Amino acid sequence: MNSIKLFCPATVANICCGFDVLGLCLSTIGDEMIIHKTQEKGVRITKITGDDLPFETERNVAGVAALALLKEIKTDFGFDIEIHKKIKAGSGIGSSAASASGAVFGINELLGKPFSRKELVQFAMKGEALASGSEHADNVAPALLGGFTLVRGYNPLDVIRIESPSELYATVIHPQIELKTSEMRVVLKPEISLKSAISQWGNLGGLIAGLYTEDYDLIQRSLHDEIIEPLRSPFIPNFDLIKKAALENGALGCGISGSGPSIFTLNKGIETAKNVAFVMNELFYKTDIPFEIHVSKIDPQGIQIINQEN
Amino acid sequence: MNSIKLFCPATVANICCGFDVLGLCLSTIGDEMIIHKTQEKGVRITKITGDDLPFETERNVAGVAALALLKEIKTDFGFDIEIHKKIKAGSGIGSSAASASGAVFGINELLGKPFSRKELVQFAMKGEALASGSEHADNVAPALLGGFTLVRGYNPLDVIRIESPSELYATVIHPQIELKTSEMRVVLKPEISLKSAISQWGNLGGLIAGLYTEDYDLIQRSLHDEIIEPLRSPFIPNFDLIKKAALENGALGCGISGSGPSIFTLNKGIETAKNVAFVMNELFYKTDIPFEIHVSKIDPQGIQIINQEN
Repeated sequence: MNSIKLFCPATVANICCGFDVLGLCLSTIGDEMIIHKTQEKGVRITKITGDDLPFETERNVAGVAALALLKEIKTDFGFDIEIHKKIKAGSGIGSSAASASGAVFGINELLGKPFSRKELVQFAMKGEALASGSEHADNVAPALLGGFTLVRGYNPLDVIRIESPSELYATVIHPQIELKTSEMRVVLKPEISLKSAISQWGNLGGLIAGLYTEDYDLIQRSLHDEIIEPLRSPFIPNFDLIKKAALENGALGCGISGSGPSIFTLNKGIETAKNVAFVMNELFYKTDIPFEIHVSKIDPQGIQIINQEN
Repeated sequence: MNSIKLFCPATVANICCGFDVLGLCLSTIGDEMIIHKTQEKGVRITKITGDDLPFETERNVAGVAALALLKEIKTDFGFDIEIHKKIKAGSGIGSSAASASGAVFGINELLGKPFSRKELVQFAMKGEALASGSEHADNVAPALLGGFTLVRGYNPLDVIRIESPSELYATVIHPQIELKTSEMRVVLKPEISLKSAISQWGNLGGLIAGLYTEDYDLIQRSLHDEIIEPLRSPFIPNFDLIKKAALENGALGCGISGSGPSIFTLNKGIETAKNVAFVMNELFYKTDIPFEIHVSKIDPQGIQIINQEN
């Protein structure tokens, strides 16, 4: 195989009570990437559409992730990467994760799959480190593995994939304002109350149990975040309004996607998900903030091969 | 039915990363209770063996729990309760929970089961409130429901029962020193670091996932507590020694049972559980502290009826 074209999905991290540990994979929005095997060694970013991103390999998240993988496997050939961004940078739905994951997934395929999807997470994290300053797995894991992913811990990296209940759909609205991940980190408090932490891990336990047992009521009862959301939601226009309206219209839960500004809901059934999208649209249409809304099942697969050529 | 004899099992709460939310039910140690329907209204504690506990209904945890249930259902008859304690008070394996749960379970049976086992938890919690000053469910829930129980939250009470993997066994050592629950509460810090909290809920998510998927390796990787154990374990003689030896001898994990002084381990297979018991015995035999060791499967049923009479 000499070239491969991929669909690299958007992802939602920080799922309410699962701050920093729980993410999920979307299916209706994602980047496209084309990776060619080349005679020339090394990694080059040869084309970028849809966004203004650096072409230098070491400054590009896809480039950095690719180099991390190629540190482990020596080749006497190289790779050209084309990136066609559909996920806007800074949207909070894993734009950098899609690029980083796509690069390592595609190169791994062109190399004959020396690594499993799970093993690729560690390389994709190097791209995330370039984007946000920290090696986190909560977007790259669902992008690579699909479904829900729990990052149990980092020493060593331990990612658990959890199948999504089949009727679960996400609705995500991206208000197109700028919110820097680094700034959203600063609003967090280094200490939290033990009482809140216990509530949070009770809810996370409930959410994980709800996912395994396909218990939508339990999922609904568990989708809360009393620690991070109160600190970050004031930076997101209309968050409280959107959340209230979404819950009133049948969403199981609502939270900040990643570090925002996107807001996600989880819903039982596509009809409810579409209904919530309609309500979000009504609320944002009145503002002068441009926005996009995505309705998506939780994608079971993660990155997909669109086609490949010899 | 006019009288019922029950086995009221001991329980382990605060299972490592599941502080205040996750408990489990033992099968090899528990109290016996006999409850008789009487013509005289009200609840009387008529006999107590094995421990020196109050006979006044309002000062006895079984009595208080029974009265809480009977507030909801009026009867023109009453109940006499005999309590035969096998679980030592202050052992950290749910002595008060066994009494409170047994009382409400037995009376519910004699009334023709107006409440489900899950509904009985709220009444049993009233007994716990008398014992420890707070209405907590993390021992009464596993005593009543068996298996593992997750208390997702209290407003309203939301208890989730989780089946135990079939090869999971607990080994529990009770060093017979006095540790007051109230004093062990005082050593806790009201604030914890966000970083530790995230580690803890990552581990709790992993543990719940491990229980559903019967993944013993994942259970092992998840059985950590970096928040409470470091504060409480110094009060428990030989805790570090016991933990180290247990883990070296195959235990999946080790922690403080409830607020101590009992120490529990979870193990895959009864042979490992017995081996860990042997090692614990070796270590404590050298001290002058009296102790008891229990090896038990995780009981799937909770409180059991030994016999009943018309």
